[in-house]
Amino acid sequence: MAELGTLVLLRHGQSTWNAENLFTGWVDVPLSEQGEAEARRGGELLVESGLLPDVVHTSVLRRAISTANIALDVADRHWIPVRRDWRLNERHYGALQGKNKKQVRDEFGEDQFMLWRRSYDVPPPPIERGSEFSQDADPRYASLGGDAPLTECLKDVVARLLPYWDSAIVPDLRAGKTVLVAAHGNSLRALVKHLDSISDAEIAGLNIPTGIPLRYDLNADLTPVTPGGTYLDPTAAKEAAAAVAAQGR
Amino acid sequence: MAELGTLVLLRHGQSTWNAENLFTGWVDVPLSEQGEAEARRGGELLVESGLLPDVVHTSVLRRAISTANIALDVADRHWIPVRRDWRLNERHYGALQGKNKKQVRDEFGEDQFMLWRRSYDVPPPPIERGSEFSQDADPRYASLGGDAPLTECLKDVVARLLPYWDSAIVPDLRAGKTVLVAAHGNSLRALVKHLDSISDAEIAGLNIPTGIPLRYDLNADLTPVTPGGTYLDPTAAKEAAAAVAAQGR
Repeated sequence: MAELGTLVLLRHGQSTWNAENLFTGWVDVPLSEQGEAEARRGGELLVESGLLPDVVHTSVLRRAISTANIALDVADRHWIPVRRDWRLNERHYGALQGKNKKQVRDEFGEDQFMLWRRSYDVPPPPIERGSEFSQDADPRYASLGGDAPLTECLKDVVARLLPYWDSAIVPDLRAGKTVLVAAHGNSLRALVKHLDSISDAEIAGLNIPTGIPLRYDLNADLTPVTPGGTYLDPTAAKEAAAAVAAQGR
Repeated sequence: MAELGTLVLLRHGQSTWNAENLFTGWVDVPLSEQGEAEARRGGELLVESGLLPDVVHTSVLRRAISTANIALDVADRHWIPVRRDWRLNERHYGALQGKNKKQVRDEFGEDQFMLWRRSYDVPPPPIERGSEFSQDADPRYASLGGDAPLTECLKDVVARLLPYWDSAIVPDLRAGKTVLVAAHGNSLRALVKHLDSISDAEIAGLNIPTGIPLRYDLNADLTPVTPGGTYLDPTAAKEAAAAVAAQGR
């Protein structure tokens, strides 16, 4: 079997709502200035590592799309083929979308807050159709009809992500390409859970930092050569993951 | 036969080399600040006209890619499918790439200058392989092997553009989509020449302004409903086309 290409995961840089500590989910907010700087740094790390993508897959959310655009422009790879799919979107945060994380924690208590944030299979309450932060009328999801989620737990994200992994990303890897996936905290956690066979319980403790490319070399059976992959800037990744874990405190 | 989708042509905004009056061709220079502003205005015009693209086709050059990214972000259509192809590139300007337009005019005289700029079938001298502004080592053209052009006249651009028009853009139009093509002065002139059946002689007088979307509604046989199409800002288009014609003076 031919050698597989290299997978590179990149979580979008800070968004304006990350900066305000709001639950975002499918709300399509832009990067903050810091987020744009993180994306540029992500591109520089690709260059420094000589890890130049041949193709990029993104979600249909602006913060991941902009991160990919900025990083690829810095890496002089702005011209590579692009694929976008809602299956790479952030977890839909249901009725929590648009709410302040600290307020939710204060209102519902630490246990409920952490259950919604970190349990594998307990979704938040569904978002009300037609409400301010729902995506009912968004044309990018029109093709889903009534099947677009109104809330998701991480288990739901795994379930809707894997068909895209199998049908769109794996073929690029089998073709020997270096594949950049620019996506979100939870869609990337879902993918890493699958790649590294992380248990439903243990995935709660895994945080993926923003803006630092995470490299996976894969065996022919798609298992990672190095479990957990390799961050292109390991020191920064460690510090950033700790900061993510502290969100909402 | 089903109704065709709408074609929207968008020439990239001013690049740093446009600003310096240099022949650019396949040299991959970025937009100037003015060019970025033009791209934003292009996006606003799409919104004001209610002409929201379902898919975008770009060249593999940064100035067209950035123009599309910026305009689509402004129009909230950053999430649509993307196709990129070298066949939408600017005309390859051969040995003139990187040279100042006024200097070329002074050195070779008005007649030769205008022949290289505006004749249909006289290309400039080919660029020397391995020279500063050639694309020999550029990975984005690696798949072309030795077939990548070393210079082009507009006739050459028409010849390499039309296969992409037929195989990639027309199918999107036949599917009823609103199709944005973000490209270059000469690749868009080549396309307009084809659409409007403009003669080899008359195409010399046609200039396409930057940053102003040009709308074509097409009949089932792909002829324009309105010959020449319709600029979304006709007044600005007229002024800008006059300015393009004066380049190199």
